[in-house]
Amino acid sequence: MGTRLGELVERLGGQLVGDPNLEVFGIAPLTDAGVSHISFLSNSKLRAQALHSQAAALIVAAADDEFIAAGYAGARIVTPNPYVYFARAAQFFAAQDAHVAPAGIHPAASVDAMATVDASASVGARAVIEAGAVIGPGVVIGAGCYIGRDAVIGEATELFANVTFHARCQIGARGIIHSGAVIGTDGFGFANEGGVYIKIPQTGRVMIGDDVDIGANTTIDRGALADTVIEDGVKLDNQIQIGHNCHVGAHTAMAGCVGVAGSAKIGKYCTFGGAAMVLGHLTIADRVHISSGSMVSRSILEAGQYTGFYPLAKNAEWEKSAAIVRNLASMREKIRALEKTIKTLTTQDTK
Amino acid sequence: MGTRLGELVERLGGQLVGDPNLEVFGIAPLTDAGVSHISFLSNSKLRAQALHSQAAALIVAAADDEFIAAGYAGARIVTPNPYVYFARAAQFFAAQDAHVAPAGIHPAASVDAMATVDASASVGARAVIEAGAVIGPGVVIGAGCYIGRDAVIGEATELFANVTFHARCQIGARGIIHSGAVIGTDGFGFANEGGVYIKIPQTGRVMIGDDVDIGANTTIDRGALADTVIEDGVKLDNQIQIGHNCHVGAHTAMAGCVGVAGSAKIGKYCTFGGAAMVLGHLTIADRVHISSGSMVSRSILEAGQYTGFYPLAKNAEWEKSAAIVRNLASMREKIRALEKTIKTLTTQDTK
Amino acid sequence: MGTRLGELVERLGGQLVGDPNLEVFGIAPLTDAGVSHISFLSNSKLRAQALHSQAAALIVAAADDEFIAAGYAGARIVTPNPYVYFARAAQFFAAQDAHVAPAGIHPAASVDAMATVDASASVGARAVIEAGAVIGPGVVIGAGCYIGRDAVIGEATELFANVTFHARCQIGARGIIHSGAVIGTDGFGFANEGGVYIKIPQTGRVMIGDDVDIGANTTIDRGALADTVIEDGVKLDNQIQIGHNCHVGAHTAMAGCVGVAGSAKIGKYCTFGGAAMVLGHLTIADRVHISSGSMVSRSILEAGQYTGFYPLAKNAEWEKSAAIVRNLASMREKIRALEKTIKTLTTQDTK
Repeated sequence: MGTRLGELVERLGGQLVGDPNLEVFGIAPLTDAGVSHISFLSNSKLRAQALHSQAAALIVAAADDEFIAAGYAGARIVTPNPYVYFARAAQFFAAQDAHVAPAGIHPAASVDAMATVDASASVGARAVIEAGAVIGPGVVIGAGCYIGRDAVIGEATELFANVTFHARCQIGARGIIHSGAVIGTDGFGFANEGGVYIKIPQTGRVMIGDDVDIGANTTIDRGALADTVIEDGVKLDNQIQIGHNCHVGAHTAMAGCVGVAGSAKIGKYCTFGGAAMVLGHLTIADRVHISSGSMVSRSILEAGQYTGFYPLAKNAEWEKSAAIVRNLASMREKIRALEKTIKTLTTQDTK
Repeated sequence: MGTRLGELVERLGGQLVGDPNLEVFGIAPLTDAGVSHISFLSNSKLRAQALHSQAAALIVAAADDEFIAAGYAGARIVTPNPYVYFARAAQFFAAQDAHVAPAGIHPAASVDAMATVDASASVGARAVIEAGAVIGPGVVIGAGCYIGRDAVIGEATELFANVTFHARCQIGARGIIHSGAVIGTDGFGFANEGGVYIKIPQTGRVMIGDDVDIGANTTIDRGALADTVIEDGVKLDNQIQIGHNCHVGAHTAMAGCVGVAGSAKIGKYCTFGGAAMVLGHLTIADRVHISSGSMVSRSILEAGQYTGFYPLAKNAEWEKSAAIVRNLASMREKIRALEKTIKTLTTQDTK
Repeated sequence: MGTRLGELVERLGGQLVGDPNLEVFGIAPLTDAGVSHISFLSNSKLRAQALHSQAAALIVAAADDEFIAAGYAGARIVTPNPYVYFARAAQFFAAQDAHVAPAGIHPAASVDAMATVDASASVGARAVIEAGAVIGPGVVIGAGCYIGRDAVIGEATELFANVTFHARCQIGARGIIHSGAVIGTDGFGFANEGGVYIKIPQTGRVMIGDDVDIGANTTIDRGALADTVIEDGVKLDNQIQIGHNCHVGAHTAMAGCVGVAGSAKIGKYCTFGGAAMVLGHLTIADRVHISSGSMVSRSILEAGQYTGFYPLAKNAEWEKSAAIVRNLASMREKIRALEKTIKTLTTQDTK
C-alpha cells in the first residue's frame, strides 16, 4: 500500500534527493507527519519547524532546499510550488484510498427510458433521472440526486448525494457538485401590478464549464430568458446564491455564504471572501478581490482588493461608535463651524 | 406553434395596432428579439432602442406609443403596464412549451395509505407522503419530496424536486416551493440551565397563504406554541431563513439570503434586499423597504426605505476609515475640546 | 389524556402548592392559557399579567411566589428556574402527542447488507445507508436521508427527512439533525497554480459529540487532513456554514445564517447572533458573545459581548453618513489642522 518516492516523482514531477525506493504511506502537515509520511514546506517562515519534522520526506522549494538540506536527514522532493505539489500528492494518496462508485445504475434508482446514461457512469440508489438527460462517461450521480429533463452532465463529473440539477442545465467535464446544491432553480423575477407580484417565467438555463466545483447547499438560478453562465475552473463554496443571468468568469473563487444578485457580470480570477454580497446588474473586472462580509453596491472596474465591513468592537464601544456614525453629519457641521470661526479669528489676528 | 397577435390580445387584453393574424413565436428583450418575436418597452429611456428592434411586434405604454408609432413599422399592443403584460405573455408562451407533469402517483413514490391525493395531482418518483397528508387538485409533488403527516398542499401548488414539507404545515393555492426548501423545521428554542441548553419542543405549524413562492434551500421554522404565518402573495427568494413565530404580511418580497429571527412581525408590501437581516421580536410596518445587506435591529413603524451597510472601498482606504470608526469617540472628544478652546478665545476677543 | 399535577412534580420536581389530582392538558403562555392548561412566569415583569391568567396552574420562581399566591387562585409549582421547568414540561406534553417512528427499516429504504442497523432504530422510506455505517439503538433516520460509508449515528439521535450525512463522520447520542443539513461535505481547499485551482482532497471527518442539534440546511465541512470537531451540547440553527477543521466548544450556540471559515477554534459557552461571520484560523475564547450581523475578523481572547454592524437609518440619512465614513480620513485631517491653528492662536494669545 506504500508508494515509492520514485513512483511519486515519475507521476508528479519534481527533483528527488534521496532513495527512490523509500516508501511513504500518506501525506501530512509538518507537525503531524510521522516516519511513514511525506510532508511539505510551503511557507519559508516554517523552515525551522521543518527541520524537526518526523516525516520520511519533504516537498520543498528550491529557495528553501539549501537550508533544509543542511539540517534535515530525510529525502526531499524539490519543486517550484510545494503547495501545489502537496495538492497533487494528496490527490494521488486519496485516490488510492477512495471508494470507487461502481459503474452502472443502482436497482433502486429511477432512470427514465428516454435518458442516456453512459455505461461507465454510476447512478446511486434512489436517484431520479428524467427523460432526455445525458449522463457522460465516468460520471457519478450520488444517491438521491435528481437530474431534470434534457440536462447534460459532462465526463467524469461527480454529483454527491442529494443534488438537484434541473431541466436543460449543463455542466462540463471533471466538475464536482456537493450535496444539497440546487442548479437551475427559477430566478426571482416578477412584474408588480398594484402591489401584487406577477411571476416572470424563467426559461433560460444554467451553463457550467469544465472543472467547476459547487459547494453543499449552493443554489444557482437559471436565466430569465438568456442563460446564467459559470465559466471553466470556477470554485464555489457552500451556501452560495447566484442569481439569474449572472456571468461568473473563469477561475473565480467564492467562499461560503456569498450572495450574487441577478445579472451581475463577474470577471476572471476574482476572489470573494465569505458572506460577501454583490448587488444585481453590476460589472466586476478581472482580478478583483472582495473581502469577507463586504457588500458590493457598485461596479468595480479596476483590479484590486476591496473591503467594506464594520469593525468589530466590545459591545459598549460599538454602541458609542455606532451612535456617532448615525450623527456624522452633525459632526461634520461642527467641524465646518469651527473652521469658519477660526477663519474669522485668524483674519482678525492678521488685521 | 405560433400565436396570433389577435389571440394574445383576446387572452391578455391591450389595444392591438396592427394585423391580428400576424403570428409570433415567443417573447424576447428589445435587443435580442428577432422577426418572429414580440418584445416590450417597459422603460421610456429605451425608446430609441425600441425603434431599432427587429421584433415583429412591441408591447408599449400609451405614453410611448406616439413616439414608437412614428418610427417603428411593426405591430403594437398598447397597455397601461408593459412589464406586467410582458410577464403575462411570457407565462402564456412558457405554458405552451412546458412539460406538464402527468397526473397520478409515480410507481416509485411512497404514499401512505392514509394520505389523500387528489386524482388530478402528480406525485413524482421517490416522493414520500405520510399518513393524513392532503394533496389538492392539480398539485405537483416533485421527485424526492417529503410531505409530513397531516400536511396540506393547496390546489395547483407545485413543489419542485427534493422539497421537505413537515407535519401539519399548510400551504394554500397556486404556490411554488423550490428544491431544497424546508418548511416546518423546528424553531431554535431553548431554555438555559447552568450553561446547558434544554430544548423547548416546537409544536406550532407553518401556515402559508395563497400565491406564495418559496425559493430553493429556504427554511421556515414552525412556531414554538403558536404558528408561523406567511400571508398571501409573499415571494421569498433562495436561501432565506424565517424563524419561529414570525408573521410575514401579504405581498411582501424578500431577495436571497435574507434572515428573519423569531417572532418578528413584518407588514404587507414590504421588500427586503438580499442578505438583509431582521432581529427577533421586532415589528416592521407596511411598505417598509430594507436595502440589501442591512441589519434591522429595532422596530420600524414608519414606511420608507432604510439602509445600513458599510460602504465598500479599496482595502487600504477601508483600513483607514475603519480605524477611525473604531475611535470615533476620541474624534468627538477632540472636537469638543476645540469648541471649548475656541469659545474661550472668542470670549476673550469680545471682552 | 390529562396529566395530574402530582405526576408532573414527581417527574420534573418542584414544590406543588395545590391539588395534586388536578389535571392539565398542555402548556401555554400566560395570555393564551385556558383553564385546562398550565402556564409559567419566567419574567418577574409579567407578574401582574400572571394574576389574570386563566391557567389552572402556574410555574413560578420562589421570588415571585408570594406575590402570585396573594392574587392568583390556581395551583402553583415553585421551582428555581420556571423557564427550564417550562421546557421540560413542554417536552413531557410533546412526547405524549408525538408520532413515534416505528422501529425497523421501511421496505422502500436502501440499506447496504454491510451496514449495521440496531433493531430498535427506525429507517424511513427512501433512506439510503451505505456499507459499514452503524446506526445505534433508538436512532431515527428520516425518509430520504443518506448515510455514507462507515458513518456512525449514536444512540437516540434523530435525523429528520432528507439529511445527508457523509462517509466516516460520527455523531453521538441524543442529537437532532434537521432536514437538508449536510454533514461531512468537502472543505474548500485548493492550491493555486498560475491562477488555476488544484483541489486538495478533504480526507478528515466531522466528529460530533452528544446532545448536539443541527439546523435545517446547515452544512459542516469535513476536515482537510485532521477532523472538524463539534463538542457536546452545541446547538446550531438553520443555514449555518462551518468550514473544515473548525473546532466548536461545548454548549456553544449559533443562530441562523452564521458562517465560520476554516480552522477557527471557538470556545465553550459562546453565543453567535444570526448572520455573524467568523474568519478562518481565528481563536475565540470561552463565553464570547457575538452580536447578530457582526464580522469577527480577529481572534478574541477575552470573554464578553462583541458587536460590529452598521447602524440602520433612513436611506437618505445613511447616504449622508456613508459618504462621510468614506472620507473619515479627510475629516481627521481637518480636525488636526484646526488643532494646529488653535495651538498657534492660543500660543500667540499667551505671549
